[in-house]
Amino acid sequence: MSESGSLDLLSSFWINSVLSVAFLICYALFKNQPLNSRVYFPRWYVFGEDERIDEFVNCGESKGSRISQYVNLNWRSYLNGFNWIWFSLRKTEEELIELVGLDSTVFVRIFLFGLKVFVPMLLWGCAVLIPVNKTDGYLKVLQEQHQNLTYGAPESLSIANVEDSAKRLWAHLVASYLFTGWTCLMLYIEYATVERMRYDFLASKKQRPDQFTVLVRQVPRDENQSVGMRIQEFFQQTHLEHYVTHQVVYKAKELTKLIKEKEKYEGKLERWYDQLSREPSTPRPTIKPRKHWYHIFRCFTTKREDAIDYYEREIERLEDEIKKERKKVLSDQKYVMRAGFVSFDCRWAAAVCAQTQQSRDRTKWITEWAPEPRDVYWNNLAIRYMLLNSRRLVVTALVVVLVIFFLIPVGAVQVLANLEQLIKYMPFLEPLSRWKYVESFISGFLPGAILKIFLLIIPYVLRELTKFEGHVSKSKIEKYTGVKYFVFLVVNVFFGNVLIGSLFDQLRQYIAAPTSIPRAFGVSIPKKATFFMTFIMIDGWTSIAAEVLRLWPLIWYHITSVLFVRTDKERVKVIPATPPAYFIVLPRLSLYILLGLVYAVISPLILPFLCVFFAFGFLIYRNQVINVYEPEYESAASFWPSFHRNVIVALILKHVTLIGLFSVKRAFASTPFLLPLPIVTYLFHLFCSEKFYHAFVNYPLQEARLKDKNELGVDVKSFLETAYLHPSIKLAPVDSDSDDDPDTIKNGTAPNGNQSGPDEPSTVKNATSNESSYKGLRDSSHHSTNPHASGPYVHRGGSGSSGSRRRWSKQISAVGSPDFYDAGSSISSPVLSRENSMDTFRNASVASSHDPSQRGGHVEATDLRQVHVSSQEPAPLNHQSSFETTAVPPTTSEDKSAETHSTEGKRDRREQGSIDRLPSLGALDQAPLGHSEP
Amino acid sequence: MSESGSLDLLSSFWINSVLSVAFLICYALFKNQPLNSRVYFPRWYVFGEDERIDEFVNCGESKGSRISQYVNLNWRSYLNGFNWIWFSLRKTEEELIELVGLDSTVFVRIFLFGLKVFVPMLLWGCAVLIPVNKTDGYLKVLQEQHQNLTYGAPESLSIANVEDSAKRLWAHLVASYLFTGWTCLMLYIEYATVERMRYDFLASKKQRPDQFTVLVRQVPRDENQSVGMRIQEFFQQTHLEHYVTHQVVYKAKELTKLIKEKEKYEGKLERWYDQLSREPSTPRPTIKPRKHWYHIFRCFTTKREDAIDYYEREIERLEDEIKKERKKVLSDQKYVMRAGFVSFDCRWAAAVCAQTQQSRDRTKWITEWAPEPRDVYWNNLAIRYMLLNSRRLVVTALVVVLVIFFLIPVGAVQVLANLEQLIKYMPFLEPLSRWKYVESFISGFLPGAILKIFLLIIPYVLRELTKFEGHVSKSKIEKYTGVKYFVFLVVNVFFGNVLIGSLFDQLRQYIAAPTSIPRAFGVSIPKKATFFMTFIMIDGWTSIAAEVLRLWPLIWYHITSVLFVRTDKERVKVIPATPPAYFIVLPRLSLYILLGLVYAVISPLILPFLCVFFAFGFLIYRNQVINVYEPEYESAASFWPSFHRNVIVALILKHVTLIGLFSVKRAFASTPFLLPLPIVTYLFHLFCSEKFYHAFVNYPLQEARLKDKNELGVDVKSFLETAYLHPSIKLAPVDSDSDDDPDTIKNGTAPNGNQSGPDEPSTVKNATSNESSYKGLRDSSHHSTNPHASGPYVHRGGSGSSGSRRRWSKQISAVGSPDFYDAGSSISSPVLSRENSMDTFRNASVASSHDPSQRGGHVEATDLRQVHVSSQEPAPLNHQSSFETTAVPPTTSEDKSAETHSTEGKRDRREQGSIDRLPSLGALDQAPLGHSEP
Repeated sequence: MSESGSLDLLSSFWINSVLSVAFLICYALFKNQPLNSRVYFPRWYVFGEDERIDEFVNCGESKGSRISQYVNLNWRSYLNGFNWIWFSLRKTEEELIELVGLDSTVFVRIFLFGLKVFVPMLLWGCAVLIPVNKTDGYLKVLQEQHQNLTYGAPESLSIANVEDSAKRLWAHLVASYLFTGWTCLMLYIEYATVERMRYDFLASKKQRPDQFTVLVRQVPRDENQSVGMRIQEFFQQTHLEHYVTHQVVYKAKELTKLIKEKEKYEGKLERWYDQLSREPSTPRPTIKPRKHWYHIFRCFTTKREDAIDYYEREIERLEDEIKKERKKVLSDQKYVMRAGFVSFDCRWAAAVCAQTQQSRDRTKWITEWAPEPRDVYWNNLAIRYMLLNSRRLVVTALVVVLVIFFLIPVGAVQVLANLEQLIKYMPFLEPLSRWKYVESFISGFLPGAILKIFLLIIPYVLRELTKFEGHVSKSKIEKYTGVKYFVFLVVNVFFGNVLIGSLFDQLRQYIAAPTSIPRAFGVSIPKKATFFMTFIMIDGWTSIAAEVLRLWPLIWYHITSVLFVRTDKERVKVIPATPPAYFIVLPRLSLYILLGLVYAVISPLILPFLCVFFAFGFLIYRNQVINVYEPEYESAASFWPSFHRNVIVALILKHVTLIGLFSVKRAFASTPFLLPLPIVTYLFHLFCSEKFYHAFVNYPLQEARLKDKNELGVDVKSFLETAYLHPSIKLAPVDSDSDDDPDTIKNGTAPNGNQSGPDEPSTVKNATSNESSYKGLRDSSHHSTNPHASGPYVHRGGSGSSGSRRRWSKQISAVGSPDFYDAGSSISSPVLSRENSMDTFRNASVASSHDPSQRGGHVEATDLRQVHVSSQEPAPLNHQSSFETTAVPPTTSEDKSAETHSTEGKRDRREQGSIDRLPSLGALDQAPLGHSEP
Repeated sequence: MSESGSLDLLSSFWINSVLSVAFLICYALFKNQPLNSRVYFPRWYVFGEDERIDEFVNCGESKGSRISQYVNLNWRSYLNGFNWIWFSLRKTEEELIELVGLDSTVFVRIFLFGLKVFVPMLLWGCAVLIPVNKTDGYLKVLQEQHQNLTYGAPESLSIANVEDSAKRLWAHLVASYLFTGWTCLMLYIEYATVERMRYDFLASKKQRPDQFTVLVRQVPRDENQSVGMRIQEFFQQTHLEHYVTHQVVYKAKELTKLIKEKEKYEGKLERWYDQLSREPSTPRPTIKPRKHWYHIFRCFTTKREDAIDYYEREIERLEDEIKKERKKVLSDQKYVMRAGFVSFDCRWAAAVCAQTQQSRDRTKWITEWAPEPRDVYWNNLAIRYMLLNSRRLVVTALVVVLVIFFLIPVGAVQVLANLEQLIKYMPFLEPLSRWKYVESFISGFLPGAILKIFLLIIPYVLRELTKFEGHVSKSKIEKYTGVKYFVFLVVNVFFGNVLIGSLFDQLRQYIAAPTSIPRAFGVSIPKKATFFMTFIMIDGWTSIAAEVLRLWPLIWYHITSVLFVRTDKERVKVIPATPPAYFIVLPRLSLYILLGLVYAVISPLILPFLCVFFAFGFLIYRNQVINVYEPEYESAASFWPSFHRNVIVALILKHVTLIGLFSVKRAFASTPFLLPLPIVTYLFHLFCSEKFYHAFVNYPLQEARLKDKNELGVDVKSFLETAYLHPSIKLAPVDSDSDDDPDTIKNGTAPNGNQSGPDEPSTVKNATSNESSYKGLRDSSHHSTNPHASGPYVHRGGSGSSGSRRRWSKQISAVGSPDFYDAGSSISSPVLSRENSMDTFRNASVASSHDPSQRGGHVEATDLRQVHVSSQEPAPLNHQSSFETTAVPPTTSEDKSAETHSTEGKRDRREQGSIDRLPSLGALDQAPLGHSEP
């Protein structure tokens, strides 16, 4: 307790307030520049609704000039630079759900939940606790006894100022009950609301493959039958009336690698085309081809070649290889995992299958509700199921070690990273040591920076570990990463700052004498109140403001777009629509709630800081989910139960701390009064789990049946057929003479069992669809389908069959016809279900037309393969799907036209489907809440 | 460690061996007496196959004489008095399953499991551990240091004789691994075998109501709709294709009470009829009627009445009341619980419904697999579901208190129960204190006796507590009682004898410092090896021998049959077929396994005693399940998972003890080697649970579908209709003009909603069936159906309508016609499914004939109501059911005839259906394993 404590607090308050406001002002300025709109409004590009950004940017009238493409010259727009707050607040919750999905909506609600919990506590604290604390004078008495003791305002408002074993402590006891009761009430209401929202959301969604599909794993081995046949036979037997189709899971790692390589080459090719088309006078580029990195030594022997020719050749070679690999994967049993996606003709049957035990042995035929196709984490599906347990064991052990010993390697690196050590290894730095300032800066800054880097990396390390555990969907990976990260935060940020000595020693001590835990908490936790107030301001306020400013993505975007980025395709890759990092934000939010609950009774002064944090966060994240984040999947708020559990953990920690504190205060008589609290809290948790948890795991039969009833008579088979095919297989072009009938794709073996590919002609309707889906995709996005749109630059060479897909063109010229939207939406391949849902979001009213003859006009000009693409649209159903109603009337964007943004947006949409994405450095840098660890 | 230890052991060995052998010899003598056959072969009476007892008794040839009815005069039969061992061993496991069901078979297998686990350990102990221990001389060294130390042979063979931190301890370390591995292997094999047996058993059973039925609870309230209607509507919506019928659950406590009262009066009446028929000269009995106990004071004012007349009047009155009550229950919504049994047309649908979540709210429409009708514990079904959690909480708290503080009240009573205290309260005992012998006997005997009584009562107290928890089936009540009892035994018998000081203090100490637990175990547990060897002999050997002798039931039977019992009906009630008390035996078996596992490494000398125990127990319990126990239900070995868990607990206790012991022995280096053991054991448990546990909860869809397929085209509706109606409602006679159509019974309200009973004629086929089912049952068992069989005694009076059911007769004269079996089997009411399964066991080949016109001959002579009874047989299906094949060819017992045993057996069978049973004092006294606590 020191006077400096309150001074620190005050200065910290000012610094952080000023910083936050500054960030906000910067944001208001920056976001108005069209130049930055890719940084601040990436989500609108994803939907291809970038023209609507103007609503936010207000640079409307001065649009004509060239400068206005980069800088906003409309001075009026700067006046209402904070109108984004109203924009985002204006939306009702229903609108928000339609616009951004349930995950994001519930995520934003958590901030509101924080406010609901802590504002009444704040009022009670001001009205009762602070007066009770302030009017006592225990600290003064202590100061008289120990002369060297000083204390500040925060301490005198806290429980520390209350005399030991005083009657006043009853106020705190009562407050403890009130706060716990209030929190539980809020938790209950919130859980119930989220459950209701989830069910309503699920009920409002139109046909989607995951509603009809179940993931089955551990298909028993059988020498005589392929996995696919076994699945079919088994489910035709046990779910006779409802089984429709199935899809085995392929191990397609090699294929994915080849496709990625091909995409890389295509990117390069496109870049050169782009350059050439802009400046036709440029000499054609040449390169020295090398296949492996070690061929670099041969650079003198090999001749320079024409780059475009070379890459076109390479692409052609890769295409052949991909075709072969694809054929191999599809026809060889050893590429088929013992798992599959089984689809049923109604949601009821899928719900039944997901919830029941199929066979005698529970470790065989394990079924679970299938994740969305875009949510599937394909790599993990290829893991053998029996390995999962050992993997989980290993990861758990690793995480425990990481959590407990985290500070040891950090400390070691910090020790190594002083200037002397640096000079030892890098003698050229020696001159630096002559300047005192540099030395002190390094010794003062470096350790903090190292800790910060470690802390920034931790959630990503945890995510990699969780991936290794083998969860089959991205949402699950994020969920379980979040659990681990919360444990890490509680142990290393909360306890790491509260307890003295190494965590491991502490732990050993506590295991040896668990009854000493409350007392240890009671002694050390109250001392750290001021520290955590500062923490909330730095880590909460400032980094939330930084989150809205997106400083790192902003810098990164401009650097790269000036230095490296040539084509628009590349520009999209630099700042892809950022998926919200729930696995980072939710644990951190839980940590704040933990701080609030633990200190609410002990030191109510922390509450205003928290309330400001939650209010601020609510505004900013509402804006972010609307403009910035584009989720990779929609899990319908399935993260809620784990957030709920975090709050329960926080409550119980609070109780333990209070029990310890009261026993330190020698108010022993109160312990029996406090003991019921943790027990009741735990029972409350059990009750909530019993009542609500299953809603986040199961699909109740009544709901399923109702939904089935409301959508009778749809042909589900066609749109389920390839919904769960491995994306690489869908992307890969098909060998024209290969046996690629639906049965082969479904089962991983040709019906007649020959693995070398039969000679029979491919008459099956799907035969060529897969081949052209990828090509078609690319072609159509470049509008070679539209004769008048073919660009000025026609490439040299290009042998016969693959000629059509090489007519690269600049796209801007191609936009303007309503055909654009139509074609774009219908061509989006079945693979890219993520993209699909975006398409359908926009084109909710586009008529489903999967018959080429119906498509008429704009198809005529395209080559035959193109027609196939259109005709092989996965399903008419998909077009009506995903978002029943959309915030944007489907035709608006078709009326507006011929704008650069719009074109870019369209392309973005297409690029999202690519399985290759730039390793998201951006995502790493702009992790929400900013990671400014203490 | 004392020399006396080994002496005690030796003397204990001799005493117990002699006692056991003596008991066995007594058994061999007693069981051969026909007089005792009701005590030793009650199970055969249940099946009505008492004539087969001769096979065991061997009194065949001298049957004619009157004495031979009581005493076996065939001297040859005494020569092979131990042939019962071969009789029981001769049966294969399949035969055993057919004969006694899976529960009993698996129960007997547990003894075999004990042998499989401990015999190899014994061999290893003899070959390795005992030589290693014996050849060291640590105890000798100790003795030289401390002169007053003595030790016996058992100690010198144990680990105590090995020097601290000696290399020899490696042998024990290795043995620990070997034993753990071996136990786990055996556990795994056994779990897998039991699982397979369970599935095979389930698959082999024919149609039974519980296969098609699901219990649904927490039906949501609705003002406008009755519970029955809601259930129907809901399941017709969610399980449209498969829903067949349902049955609401009634609160029929009052009705049950009335029926019991009526049965009491009928019993009295029958007794007098019996007496009169035997000695027609006896004057008719008279009584002073009184309605309540306090009317005893009016005995001077009331006149004596003719007893028979009085009781007949009373019965008639009760019958009217029962009719009214029945009508009320059936028509008033407030007697209907918010629960019901829902039946489906195939097993697949029932399995689906039991395993899935039905509605949004998990706390509504909770479904679970229905127990067998005879297994249902009706009282608990009437408990409101939301009360269950609080009930469970209360019971858990009570059990914890009971377990921890058990010895305190016992000690208090022991203190109070010395002679001085007794004399204080009962001065007339004073003369006793003058004799020294009496005083010392009382002070020596009384405390032990009191402890024993408390220990004997405990499992029944625990069972009552478990009943209060609200489990819906008897099997579950027994299962959860077993869990509690095992905890009690481990804490009070194992730790109570091992640890010093009060359990509560110990517990507090351990919670404060959990790391001290292993050391405390390591110090105190090895010291008690000799004590537990004695314990195994007294509590194991002798009481198992006592179990086969059935001393208490024997004495009880003879006392009561001499003093009180007059009619055969009463004789049946004295020794009903005893249900096996799994909730007592299984925990005790687990305790023995715990002792074996804990001491196997420490003191291998315990193993021979255990092996003898298991071998002995195997022989005797095999005999008991065949001849004595008749289970109340068949749960298909659902107790196995909890037994498995007990063994796992035992293993982990063993590991903790060893870790402590090794650290006491200062072999610290070994602790890291031992630590993996508990972890691996726990993981093994998780693995087994994952793999096998669900087999004991769920019915896998594949199995259900297969079984459905094999039995296509059966009409399930008819036999499901009233399978789950409350037995009291079935037993109660029906008001002839009441609206008793199936819909009313199903839903608890008349279809048109009026509760006073409509006037419309009851044309529905079931209308009179329920009315006559009970009467018919009784009548037919007395063969009033057979004109030539009506007894010599015709009662006086009896007004019109109920006249036919009062023609009491002696039964013996009625036997002899094949009609007997036929009528008996077809009349057994749908209520008594327990009885049903027995009937069907015998009458597997009796043709299903539920059309009165088909029954022809022997029906003609009966009155019309009788026909209804026969025609209302619950279902033809039931006749083919339960046990597909039976050990006895169905006709054998029909060929034999006119024997007293046989008649008695038939009647037993009928009496089993009565909802009133004598509170089973016998069961309390002859609790398996004998309860001879140390």
